[in-house]
Parts: sequence; structure tokens; C-alpha cells
Amino acid sequence: MRVFDSPSPKDWESILKRPTLAIQELDDIVAAVLKEIEEEGDTAVLRYTARFDKADLQTYKVSSEEVAAAPAQLSEELKQAIQTAKDNIQKFHEQQLSKIEVVETMPGVHCWRKNVGIEKVGLYVPGGTAPLFSSVLMLGVPAILAACKEVVLCTPPNAQGAIHPAIIYAAQLVGISQIFKVGGIQAVGAMAFGTETVPQVYKIFGPGNQYVTAAKQMVSRVGTAIDMPAGPSEVLVCADNSADPAFVAADLLSQAEHGVDSQVVLVAFDQDFVAQVQAAIEQQLAALPRRAIARKALDNSVAIVTSSRSEAMAIINLYAPEHLILSVEEVDDFSEQIVNAGSVFMGNFTPESAGDYASGTNHTLPTNGFARAYSGVSVDSFVKKITFQQISQEGLKLLGPAVEAMAEAEQLMAHKNAVSIRLAKLNA
Amino acid sequence: MRVFDSPSPKDWESILKRPTLAIQELDDIVAAVLKEIEEEGDTAVLRYTARFDKADLQTYKVSSEEVAAAPAQLSEELKQAIQTAKDNIQKFHEQQLSKIEVVETMPGVHCWRKNVGIEKVGLYVPGGTAPLFSSVLMLGVPAILAACKEVVLCTPPNAQGAIHPAIIYAAQLVGISQIFKVGGIQAVGAMAFGTETVPQVYKIFGPGNQYVTAAKQMVSRVGTAIDMPAGPSEVLVCADNSADPAFVAADLLSQAEHGVDSQVVLVAFDQDFVAQVQAAIEQQLAALPRRAIARKALDNSVAIVTSSRSEAMAIINLYAPEHLILSVEEVDDFSEQIVNAGSVFMGNFTPESAGDYASGTNHTLPTNGFARAYSGVSVDSFVKKITFQQISQEGLKLLGPAVEAMAEAEQLMAHKNAVSIRLAKLNA
Repeated sequence: MRVFDSPSPKDWESILKRPTLAIQELDDIVAAVLKEIEEEGDTAVLRYTARFDKADLQTYKVSSEEVAAAPAQLSEELKQAIQTAKDNIQKFHEQQLSKIEVVETMPGVHCWRKNVGIEKVGLYVPGGTAPLFSSVLMLGVPAILAACKEVVLCTPPNAQGAIHPAIIYAAQLVGISQIFKVGGIQAVGAMAFGTETVPQVYKIFGPGNQYVTAAKQMVSRVGTAIDMPAGPSEVLVCADNSADPAFVAADLLSQAEHGVDSQVVLVAFDQDFVAQVQAAIEQQLAALPRRAIARKALDNSVAIVTSSRSEAMAIINLYAPEHLILSVEEVDDFSEQIVNAGSVFMGNFTPESAGDYASGTNHTLPTNGFARAYSGVSVDSFVKKITFQQISQEGLKLLGPAVEAMAEAEQLMAHKNAVSIRLAKLNA
Repeated sequence: MRVFDSPSPKDWESILKRPTLAIQELDDIVAAVLKEIEEEGDTAVLRYTARFDKADLQTYKVSSEEVAAAPAQLSEELKQAIQTAKDNIQKFHEQQLSKIEVVETMPGVHCWRKNVGIEKVGLYVPGGTAPLFSSVLMLGVPAILAACKEVVLCTPPNAQGAIHPAIIYAAQLVGISQIFKVGGIQAVGAMAFGTETVPQVYKIFGPGNQYVTAAKQMVSRVGTAIDMPAGPSEVLVCADNSADPAFVAADLLSQAEHGVDSQVVLVAFDQDFVAQVQAAIEQQLAALPRRAIARKALDNSVAIVTSSRSEAMAIINLYAPEHLILSVEEVDDFSEQIVNAGSVFMGNFTPESAGDYASGTNHTLPTNGFARAYSGVSVDSFVKKITFQQISQEGLKLLGPAVEAMAEAEQLMAHKNAVSIRLAKLNA
């Protein structure tokens, strides 16, 4: 962790620079695989599953036997934890459902929005070193709440052709019945184009490695929507001397263990405090199974010391962290000033892990500075807001002349005529 | 207009096929211009404005003199119409502002979302044959309601280096003070990268031709968000024999006059009715200044006759029209079943023109079938929904064990430790 003491504001941007993502370079591989999936369907899916995941499968839909067998393979403690997480996520996301409210903008002119679930959605859950069943809850709960009619889940199998029972269990718990053992580019292609096995979907959600990200961006150009562009996970911890250095170290490490490209940033107000955090990191690192990964991520990371609270806020809003932990005494004042962040964790007993798993908020969040313009996943991400309007005869008499004047000024006479022909009939 | 009488459902998709967009082919030109804008800033902007718009400018920010001179160049009638439209759009979009609602997912675990306006947004208003000042209202009103701090407007100048006073007037009316005379790829580049004159923005909104669309998609891959992918405008009119053929013809023509690539679709229940609409189209066409454009668009368009209401609904939801006009007797029943559409116009006195200009709903809508997954522009498009959470010591005692169990099962021990280290202190 490189420490910068009171750097000049003009240097902040370069200090906070994230590692560049070289997505462009993958485009040729990704385009080639997508093309084969589109043209050959299941044949190509199974070929790439054999090549990339080393799994030799004849079929790749999770069977009802596999679903039935999943619960017995998990401890009661874990099942209870998953249930708690699901309940909290559901409670938080339920609040995002909205009712229709009709606005009468002028007498007789009624306009409203109606939320309609996207009919077919695809959820991607990465495989890799750990079974990320928490992502099943984070994507599945809002999809079901939004009343999406068809919810498809893809996740890569291990070399034995299996997926972790916790993924199957979580999917079944939230109400997802179509699970497919397919990952990477081939999963994105299967959901975007449809195959004999996987139904085509209209929007694809979920995190993934750089291949998955590139594939999602590519299919988004030809008609399939995606949740958001993704980059490596990141946290910024802002801590004053009221914080516990050991807690701060634990929070930084919980992000650093994600991957060698994870980013952690510490903004503090005191050099001694930073030194204590660093000492705590060293102490805690020794006990971590993923310490090699965490250490590499920390090498790319920075601590900035500033004496000014307004500078700290400016640094946070400039960086636009995916996760922001505010371990500061005046946490309400700080949080009021947050403009750019994905999710904010307030106070010394609110670790990022809580929101990663079970407090109720979503963990699918904008990385790589995208928090400047993007929100995390929510029920909103799974619905379209269709506008409706109904205008009465009296309403059109009131509104029509304005439409006629504007259409004429924009030189769109057929637009004008669509009103004029109606007004003529009403005034006849 | 090609008429299909009771086609088989298996043929619907090919009948409703939209003209393919060949965006890919433009990529080289677009990438080259964007690169020059990024590297050279204003110099490149002015060079391309001279080349593409034939306007030789020294500076391209609209001056306070130009702003002051705009109102006098417009008729009182037009100014009043713009005011009416602005008031209605504001009334409808105000309803989209949401208050913070805190959810206590478990005792001591408080989670909420806060809408924060995207700090810097760029609005693009196309030039071309008509001055589309209505788009200034449709993008500017929600941007200002969302409390975006910096709102930038770009629109191409004519060969004399001027932009239409109605655009300046509408911008000033909604509260946009930064207007730039720049269009096309160079406008998108200027807003995405920033120049000496144009501030960099985080999200770019607005319609445009295929070059603008390709440029928006390209900058969206390197960090600037965009509102939505865009294609030619389109309408589907569903009309039974309670509709007035002349009104239906006027509605179809109001879409067809947009451009030769506009799409209009008629779904009807009676061949004679379709024939009456076609006769009315011919009659109305003769009086339209843009009849050549409208006729070409109609050549690409289709009418489908079906005797079944459920087939009509299936056709509508398959096509997923940007604009849907329901000129049918049982309009409430029909509208209940709409799943895929951008904006719906109900009844015989609700022409699309009303929503294009002044009823209050937004006219920036998903085209090209994107209504299956995308919503039109609203206040939501201009905010990020940042999640916050605050957990008390008692809350963490309740929630913590679930987080620990899940983190351990995902083999992320540092995630677990961020909770354990806190619980250890609480239980000490």
C-alpha cells in the first residue's frame, strides 16, 4: 500500500488511477465464440464448456434430481444463513416496487407510468475459486419481485460437470427453475441468442471476468440489454481516529482478497493511524487462506492522508468508489456529502461484508468509477417503466393548439395534422 | 404499405422485421473522429464543424447576446406553446422524484436508497431539416428536476453558424446555461472527453443519426454512460372498427414523415377498414410538405389483419413498438395486456403528437425492439440511486452469524473476518 501524505489536489487523479482495462484486446476471441454459439447453438456451447471448463457434458440443464439433492448437501447453519439473507434482501427490495400514480397534467390529459417486468432475463453467476451463491440471491430476488416471467441462471460447471449445491439451493429458494451449467462467453452467447437448451433473454445480469464483460458489452450492441459495465471490485475506507485500526484493516482485506486486480483505498486524517492499519493488515494477512491474492491487490492500492474533511470528501467523490465505508465520528455529516458511490457503509459496526451478503442491499454495484453515472442493481433494473396517456375530447381541445404550434415550428406538418384532424371533428 | 391478411404466427417475426442497422460499418470513421477530438480538443471540433456542418466558427459557445436575442425571434403563440409543454412535462416528471425511505431489514439493520443527480450530463439535440426544440424540453426538464449540477447542451449549427432561436429559448426556459454549437460525432466526443470549451460529462442523452448513435456506443465502452441505444422512430397503431380511418391515417403519417427509415405498423381487424385507412393516407399525403419522405417510409411498412384480439396483443408485444396507439373500443382491456412498448396512447383522441410535444410524458423512447428491456428517459435516467446502510452493535450481533456462515461457504475468509473481529470486540 503506497501512502501519500497531504498530496496536492492536482495529483489526486493520478494517485487514484485504476489499472487500465484492456477489454479491446479480447474482442476477437469473444466475437468468434459468440458467432459460433449463435450459429451452432448447443453443439458450440458443449464444445467450449469442454475446452474452457474441462467438463465433458452431454446435456447442461440442471436436472430435477440435482435440485432435489442440493439441500441435503448443505449444513443447516448455511441454509439458515441463506434464508436470513434472502429475507433481508427481499424486504429491502420490496420497498422498490412502485404503484401506478396517474398525473392529470391538464384537465382531461391523464399520464402515468406502469412498471412491467422484463419478460425474459438471464442471470450470470461466476464460478472460479469460490461458489458465489450470494449473487444468486442478489439477482434472483429482484428478478422475481419484478415479476419477470422467465428467469434463467447460468453458471460454469467444475471439471466433474457439477455446480455447487449452494447455488442450486439459493436458486430454488428464490424461485428460479431453469439453471444451466454453462459459463464464460458461451453462457452470454447462449442467453443472448438462445440455443436448443437455453431460452433467449432480453437482458443479462451479473458479474464475471473480463471475457464475460466483453461478451456482455458485445451482445449489448446487437440487441440484448445488460445490467452495467463491470470492472474489478473496489472499496474506499474513510477513517478518522475514532475508527478501530483492526476493523479498517479487516475491511480493506475483505476487498483485497477478491482478486489481484481488486482496488482498496484508505483515506485517513493521521499518519500514525495509517501505520496502525498497516500493522493490523500484516497481522491479519498471515491467517488468510487467500493472502497471496490480497497482498498483490494491496500492492496496487493507496492510502491518502489529509488534514481536511472537505478534501476527504472531494477525494471520495472524485474516485467514485463501488463500496464506501465511512468509519468516522460525524458519519451523518459525511454521508450527506456523498455524490459518487455505489453503496455506503456507515459507522464502525457496518462492514462491507454485511452488504455483500445479508443486510438487504444489493451487492451488484458500479465499479471502475461508473458510480458517477450508474446505480447498482435493484428492482428497477428488472422492469421497464412504460408510459401511458389518455386524453379526453375536452383535454385535446385544451392541449391541441400547443401541439399544433410546436409541430409547425419543427416543420413536422403531419404531426400537426394528427391533432388538427381531430380538433376539426370536435369543432364540427 | 404491404397488407398481410391473417398471416400465420410463424411468419409474424419476418413480417415485422425492422431494417437492419449497419452500425459496425461506421466504426472506423467514428473512432477516428473521436480520437482527434480527445487529442486536439477544440481545434478538432472546429475543423469537423467546418467539414460536416459547413460552418466556419471561431468559438462555439452560444453567447449571452444570442440568448438575450432569442425570445424576440419567436412568435408569442410559439412561446406560449413551449411554456405549456414545459409545464406539463415538469408536472409529469416531478412525480418521479422519490423520497428516502429507510427499511429496517432486521432490528438494528437500517438500509435505504438516496437519489443523487448525476453531477455532469450532456444533452444532444439533432439538427438537420427541423429545429427539434421539443427534445430540449424532454431532456432538460428531467435533468434540472434531478438536480444535475452541470447540464450541457450540444446541437449542430447551420452553415451560417447559427442555431435556431427556439432551441436557445427552450434551453433558457428550463434552466440550461451552457449551449454549444456542435453536432454529430464531434459533439459526442467533446462531451465525453471534454475540450477547452466543453466540460466533460458523465452521461450523454439524446437522439441522433447513425453517426451520433455509433459515437455514443463507442464512448460508452470507455467510461461515459449513455441514455439508450437508438434507432429510427416507429409507431404501431392497433385499430378496430370503432376507430376513425382518417385519424389512423394521420397518426401513421405523423410517424412516417420523420425519415425514410421510420417504421409504421397497422394492426387491424378488418380488411375494409385497412382499405379505408389506405385511402385516407393517399388523400392526406398530397397536402404534406414531407410527402416524399413519408411515402418512402410507408413502402417499408406493413398492415396486419387479424380476427383475434389475443393475436393482436401477441403481435404488439412481439414487435415491442416505441409508440403504441390503441384506437380500440375496449382500450382498458387492451392496455392491461401490454408488456413491450415504450409509450402507449389510448383512445381516439390521444394522438402520438400529443406525447411527442406537450402532454407531459417523455418522447425519448426505446426504438428497434429495445422496449423489451429498456424504458424511456425519465428523472430516473438522470440520477444514481446510492444505497446506504447503518448497522448498530445489536444489529451486527443478530446479522453477523449469517454473514460469517455465507462468507465461509464462499471461501472468502477475509469477508468473514471483517464481521468476526467486530463480534469478538462486542462479545469481549
